[in-house]
Amino acid sequence: MSTIETQRKLEVCFTPALLPNYEIDGKIVVVIDVFRATTAIITGMQYGVKEIIPVKDIEDAFEYKHRGFITAAERKGEVVEGFDFGNSPFAFMDENLRGETIVLTTTNCTTAMLQVKHANKTFLGAFINITAVAEQLNRESDDVILLCAGWKNKFSIEDALFAGALAERLLNKFNFTTDCDSTIAAHTIYLAAKTDIPAYLKQSSHRKRLGHLNLERDIEYCLKKDQATVVPQFDGYSIKLVEVEVVG
Amino acid sequence: MSTIETQRKLEVCFTPALLPNYEIDGKIVVVIDVFRATTAIITGMQYGVKEIIPVKDIEDAFEYKHRGFITAAERKGEVVEGFDFGNSPFAFMDENLRGETIVLTTTNCTTAMLQVKHANKTFLGAFINITAVAEQLNRESDDVILLCAGWKNKFSIEDALFAGALAERLLNKFNFTTDCDSTIAAHTIYLAAKTDIPAYLKQSSHRKRLGHLNLERDIEYCLKKDQATVVPQFDGYSIKLVEVEVVG
Repeated sequence: MSTIETQRKLEVCFTPALLPNYEIDGKIVVVIDVFRATTAIITGMQYGVKEIIPVKDIEDAFEYKHRGFITAAERKGEVVEGFDFGNSPFAFMDENLRGETIVLTTTNCTTAMLQVKHANKTFLGAFINITAVAEQLNRESDDVILLCAGWKNKFSIEDALFAGALAERLLNKFNFTTDCDSTIAAHTIYLAAKTDIPAYLKQSSHRKRLGHLNLERDIEYCLKKDQATVVPQFDGYSIKLVEVEVVG
Repeated sequence: MSTIETQRKLEVCFTPALLPNYEIDGKIVVVIDVFRATTAIITGMQYGVKEIIPVKDIEDAFEYKHRGFITAAERKGEVVEGFDFGNSPFAFMDENLRGETIVLTTTNCTTAMLQVKHANKTFLGAFINITAVAEQLNRESDDVILLCAGWKNKFSIEDALFAGALAERLLNKFNFTTDCDSTIAAHTIYLAAKTDIPAYLKQSSHRKRLGHLNLERDIEYCLKKDQATVVPQFDGYSIKLVEVEVVG
């Protein structure tokens, strides 16, 4: 029995602007927005948030707010005036949010998620749930695309770096293979950066962009592996927890 | 006098599909298509070709052919039937081409060039003229964008790798700076691959794509540094040699 036949394909898409080059149907997509949306969503789910509804526009989010929803909105890295909070993961570490539904709009992540509605399944990944998301992907059977949210359709190095870290797990530990140049590049970047990821990212544009906003604590948290055991899943309307089967 | 003030900005664009994210006006663009179009064009210029006219479609190329032009056309890595040659650099090493004008259409490079017509200047780069193009850029004064032609709007690792090699020269040897994540990523990939670039690229999709076409000799040549001393420049209509001032 050859294992080659059963190997699953892994691809990385560096920004939503490059999605037209990918075949999404029948694939599993992992949406990645390390600074900070997917990290924040995973954190909220870990703290017991029941459901997160991503919306594209501030106007849509306001409409939900007027209907009584807890609403979070981020633009340019800051909380939008009139909303309960933005996308700082620390805002989602709140026992009062347990069992609640939150409506969320962010610069990049919600747009990315809404563009892959037609994927077979869509999960959310970040360093804080890297082991959980790798194991979830291993339990599935479809090919996988790691979709970096980027920054306004531009390549973001922290998302590529995380895609590389996840690729490392899938290619070396699980039964994945790749012939995708973006995956090879992301993997190379991770291998070059892994001994000191915060130092490597000090040069990145997004850190500089967030630097003046006094977000050092957020950034440090966003780069910590395995702070959460949950894998959020987007079903085309809202994000809920994947039901993990307990084995053994 | 601070050198910071006079530092020139360097950016990398990984595929023409991402060009809408870049401000091209007033910039110098270096178009990169290592396998094999820019390598072939540089080779032709080194061998004395006077002018190369890039055209987008096979139909346009045929029209030139019927008017008596020497025409080269590549699709899927192969010479298109009815044309004199494709984009193998070896086809351009022909003394009979000295002083001639060639019309050329290729899968990626011509499309990329035609998309940056509004740049201040557009040069062509590849490993075979890396020193010449770096020195040419150093003689100029505008900010620089390295545009990877990629493969049908997808990220290609060999183009990113060359962009990283050129970035290394510009950032370390000349007075350039960057806050562009793509530049940082390309530079990281080059540093990881530089001790054995052919081995690193053995895994790339484009090598696999070209592999069955028996292009090992082309690929080996495309990865050799400094086989040429010329820098082709695209003026929006055709490619000619940059007039290099001889100093001293």
